[in-house]
Amino acid sequence: MGKKYVIGVDLGGTKILTALADLEGQILQRVRVETGANEPAEQVVRRINTTVEQVLNEAQVSKDDVLRIGVGSPGPLNIKEGIVLFTPNLKWNNVPIVKMMSDALGLPVLLENDANAAALAEHAFGAGKGSSNMIYMTISTGIGGGVIINNQILHGFSESAGEIGHHTIMADGPVCGCGNRGCLEALASGTALGRYGREAVERGVDTLIGEMVEKIEDIDGSVVTRAAQEGDRVALEIVDKVANYIGIGIANMINIFNPEKIVLGGGVTKAGELFIDRILQTVEERALEAPRKLCEITFSKLGSDVGVLGAIAVALK
Amino acid sequence: MGKKYVIGVDLGGTKILTALADLEGQILQRVRVETGANEPAEQVVRRINTTVEQVLNEAQVSKDDVLRIGVGSPGPLNIKEGIVLFTPNLKWNNVPIVKMMSDALGLPVLLENDANAAALAEHAFGAGKGSSNMIYMTISTGIGGGVIINNQILHGFSESAGEIGHHTIMADGPVCGCGNRGCLEALASGTALGRYGREAVERGVDTLIGEMVEKIEDIDGSVVTRAAQEGDRVALEIVDKVANYIGIGIANMINIFNPEKIVLGGGVTKAGELFIDRILQTVEERALEAPRKLCEITFSKLGSDVGVLGAIAVALK
Repeated sequence: MGKKYVIGVDLGGTKILTALADLEGQILQRVRVETGANEPAEQVVRRINTTVEQVLNEAQVSKDDVLRIGVGSPGPLNIKEGIVLFTPNLKWNNVPIVKMMSDALGLPVLLENDANAAALAEHAFGAGKGSSNMIYMTISTGIGGGVIINNQILHGFSESAGEIGHHTIMADGPVCGCGNRGCLEALASGTALGRYGREAVERGVDTLIGEMVEKIEDIDGSVVTRAAQEGDRVALEIVDKVANYIGIGIANMINIFNPEKIVLGGGVTKAGELFIDRILQTVEERALEAPRKLCEITFSKLGSDVGVLGAIAVALK
Repeated sequence: MGKKYVIGVDLGGTKILTALADLEGQILQRVRVETGANEPAEQVVRRINTTVEQVLNEAQVSKDDVLRIGVGSPGPLNIKEGIVLFTPNLKWNNVPIVKMMSDALGLPVLLENDANAAALAEHAFGAGKGSSNMIYMTISTGIGGGVIINNQILHGFSESAGEIGHHTIMADGPVCGCGNRGCLEALASGTALGRYGREAVERGVDTLIGEMVEKIEDIDGSVVTRAAQEGDRVALEIVDKVANYIGIGIANMINIFNPEKIVLGGGVTKAGELFIDRILQTVEERALEAPRKLCEITFSKLGSDVGVLGAIAVALK
């Protein structure tokens, strides 16, 4: 008799979300706990294992009926060996999470980085369903992504491919957190959106942005977005600038990968209607016509479940 | 009894080079003729077929011993259907070259675009040998390339992936032939090299570049390169600028694809020793450390045979 369930674990810096799903990816039971990122890795992994036992107990499902556990984790990882190499948020260092989980739980475990897992979620269950060549681009504090080619994640030679937020689109642009200059992330992330807002207020221009916060340091991407939604001219200009850079990044991905779909997710795209017209206009002006005409640009459909659904998609691989 | 030979056809705008090879890709016989690009497609394809018969006759090899014919052609193509959609150099339009050749010759024919074929040649026989994730970047009049992922060419959704010369590295850069702004090709091709040389001479700066030609329009990439080789300061500055842009393009490819090797070919890299130090310096400054440290950047080893060896690699697939 075949196995009937999989389990997905979305491991984040602040919370762990674990879900039991059927083989179609329907979530049947979920448990959410604080990560406790300050505790040692052993303790956090024990907590993960407890959430797995919990979803099984609550759903009254036996381990014998579980095909596999998928884990989506921040990286960098060694996926083949099942090791979290390090993660700035969790302060982990060479944690063999796959072995620690499978030894304790007696179930096979597969690891994937969170951006790739989210791409697999969109591909299996979301806006990318039905496409075999797809790019998922997440725009929030940073810009990350996952590239799917012929239904497989692009891992590259040492599993660090797909850093689409870290490609230069402005040779002499601002310094990026990665050390490069003019990365897409340095120009078009939520962090950049907030920086443009603070710069505008510091220049003393007439804008709502400064009135929406107590201190100038409180201006972030969401503040600028809200000001734009209220019709503030300066905020709208900033949004237009960022949307243009996002469009350049997307046009680059179209020319390089010729994907069938590009799915946009992350906090910044929650206000997608503010950005989308300019994004599409820039893509039309910049991408090669043949691949552009066949590429659909769309928003994530999975919302805050994208992480755990990604882990489920990994388990179903 | 197995087939012992393959045939490769390198179809170019000015010449056709056809070669018979063994299953290790060793060329045993070759025929080179003018393409006659002004004649109708039917006549050019008949000429190709004649070169195939010729290499067989000269090597005294029977068609029965030939596994397959590979054709490397300028594109865009429809590879699955075996059709050359159009090529600016040949003025072809929807030419079903695979059917025309296989009907006439009674042998299976596989089509691939010339840049991808060159990537396969480097992968099978040249500087990329032994790597499963490799990028071939050719820098001559334009910048093209082929991306190999897990030993397969990246074709994308509609076979137009891999246009690595047409990704923006300078958001407000010069207009490119493709209609975009600030493409790698617009900034770092042989054409750009020549343009920078002409601009320098027009500005009236003190340089050998102008003295090496009769008319300013005669300044191209090779003139600037020769002036740099003779130690001309202005030409060296131009080479440095172009090498920096090439380095930015390579750093982007490393962050996006995490390849094991990047192989540089094309006319500009014939003077590779002029460029390589600055290329490597820029890559070191700009690419993410983990994928950069594992990526070898090297020059093509196959010289002018890269095209026909690519067609042979296609036939051996």
